[in-house]
Amino acid sequence: MDRIRAGIYGYGNIGKNVERAIADSDDFSLAAVFTRRDPVNVKVATKGVKAVAADRVLEFKDKIDVMLMCGGSATDLPVQVPEIVKDFNIVDTFDTHADIPRYLDTVGVIAEKNKKVAVISAGWDPGLFSMIKALFASLLPNGKNQAFWGPGVSQGHSDAIRHVKGVADAIQYTVPSEKVLEEMRNGSTADYTTKQKHKRVCYVVAEEGADKNRIAKDIKEMPNYFADYDTEVNFISAAELKKEHGTMPHGGHVMRNGKTGDDDYHIELTMNFSSNPAFTSSVMLAYARAAFRLYKEGCFGSKTVLDISVSYLSPKSRKDLTAETL
Amino acid sequence: MDRIRAGIYGYGNIGKNVERAIADSDDFSLAAVFTRRDPVNVKVATKGVKAVAADRVLEFKDKIDVMLMCGGSATDLPVQVPEIVKDFNIVDTFDTHADIPRYLDTVGVIAEKNKKVAVISAGWDPGLFSMIKALFASLLPNGKNQAFWGPGVSQGHSDAIRHVKGVADAIQYTVPSEKVLEEMRNGSTADYTTKQKHKRVCYVVAEEGADKNRIAKDIKEMPNYFADYDTEVNFISAAELKKEHGTMPHGGHVMRNGKTGDDDYHIELTMNFSSNPAFTSSVMLAYARAAFRLYKEGCFGSKTVLDISVSYLSPKSRKDLTAETL
Repeated sequence: MDRIRAGIYGYGNIGKNVERAIADSDDFSLAAVFTRRDPVNVKVATKGVKAVAADRVLEFKDKIDVMLMCGGSATDLPVQVPEIVKDFNIVDTFDTHADIPRYLDTVGVIAEKNKKVAVISAGWDPGLFSMIKALFASLLPNGKNQAFWGPGVSQGHSDAIRHVKGVADAIQYTVPSEKVLEEMRNGSTADYTTKQKHKRVCYVVAEEGADKNRIAKDIKEMPNYFADYDTEVNFISAAELKKEHGTMPHGGHVMRNGKTGDDDYHIELTMNFSSNPAFTSSVMLAYARAAFRLYKEGCFGSKTVLDISVSYLSPKSRKDLTAETL
Repeated sequence: MDRIRAGIYGYGNIGKNVERAIADSDDFSLAAVFTRRDPVNVKVATKGVKAVAADRVLEFKDKIDVMLMCGGSATDLPVQVPEIVKDFNIVDTFDTHADIPRYLDTVGVIAEKNKKVAVISAGWDPGLFSMIKALFASLLPNGKNQAFWGPGVSQGHSDAIRHVKGVADAIQYTVPSEKVLEEMRNGSTADYTTKQKHKRVCYVVAEEGADKNRIAKDIKEMPNYFADYDTEVNFISAAELKKEHGTMPHGGHVMRNGKTGDDDYHIELTMNFSSNPAFTSSVMLAYARAAFRLYKEGCFGSKTVLDISVSYLSPKSRKDLTAETL
């Protein structure tokens, strides 16, 4: 079987994780990495693969089956994707929720016109999480979804703690409330606010001689960030912070409780990843496979996780997948 | 919006649950119920809907958009579906795992020839469970799925207990092992056998004067059924059995642990339904919606849960679903 020739556009955290996912796959090969930096200064991990200046991307028009767009949603993707999709099938993780419908339309028009496929917003949320929410709601119309995020690091909240007087360094995890998880698993159909569903767990390195009680109080009473949450403050050493809190875990739950007729159900997806970008990259790569298959079938245009069936995501043939799974 | 006109073919436990799911939906109406019994003796719950003799089904060719095939996999569906799909779009829950590939082909050829859509094996396993297994494996290729069934009643094991001397009545639940669930949630990638993953919980009504210790021993030592399992025997009264154990709950877990590069993940689907047939019927109805949409788009042939994206399952338009979900 010919491998699917992938390009990586943007070589930051996500781009490097996509590269690793490609290396771990049996059906992709990496053709090139595109960068806006000077390619001379960019060392690509994959043997034999070069960094190429982004403005030379068209030279690879016939050498790449699908481009994994690894830039950010704020300023990169809205500019890059409408341009790149003129010549390449693409996958991205565009995550500005409110702008997704318009972005889907804009990219779709260009993709159709140029006979390309664009799978957008294919990460974990928007992405797999969204698909599961819609799946639960479609199968079980009478009920209510509850989403929980974490355990995961919130960069904004970590920064807020670092600005508290006497704090040398800090990290903050958003963690689902065990109490509410338990209630949901026992069938609760109550309304829960985001604040009720999550607690904030802080690991703080205090400066020498700083008043820890005052720091904890300052954090717990900080408006918007912590005041309305169940907030836990733990003081640790700088060495411990570095050793135990250097990764970027993430996860969450989608739960749905409700009724089918007179009968109750509880259905739940739980995810925990020790590395958020590694998971996002795995999701992207599966949808890159789907993008190329749809392209080969002539199903051009823009798609999301809601439009793509599982048989397009699997490296197996439909026949093998059916025999092994059903 | 015109409602999708559904037919129910076979009015047993599943058929009656499908009827209830249709009544709870906003986009289906029930056109007729087909039965092999004398229709005079069949009372349909839905007002204004009649039971019709199965051999008169062709009179409804233009009055039904999709037929929900509610017979059994052993003898009903293999005979009925190849016949009915000549004139109707269908959904079924064919669950003889080993025969699914051949059945999919057989039904597919007839469906394509007659420009109809057949969604087969759309229950919970095969069905939603299978889809989730394939989804996990496609997104996260490095890892191993572990499926757990229950808590749910096993009819075969309940019967086996009822044949033990001194037993008046009994019910047996297959229950996932809490110990193995816990190990999986802590990241285990061990191999587990079905026996390790499940325990057997029995509720037994003893005949008056029967030796309970001997009954418990006979059950626990019964080869094939119980001897190799962690088996729990509880004695209860006939009244308690009737009151507490009259429903048909079911559920299960699909778990997958593995790595993305050097990073660990745990991903899990948990389902608990107080009524197994009510859940199965909800799944069938969502795939009936998909069958009719695919038919309108001219995508004829046989499909499974692996071939159908979430946007086909939702009663919402793709545009609304995208805006609300992503």
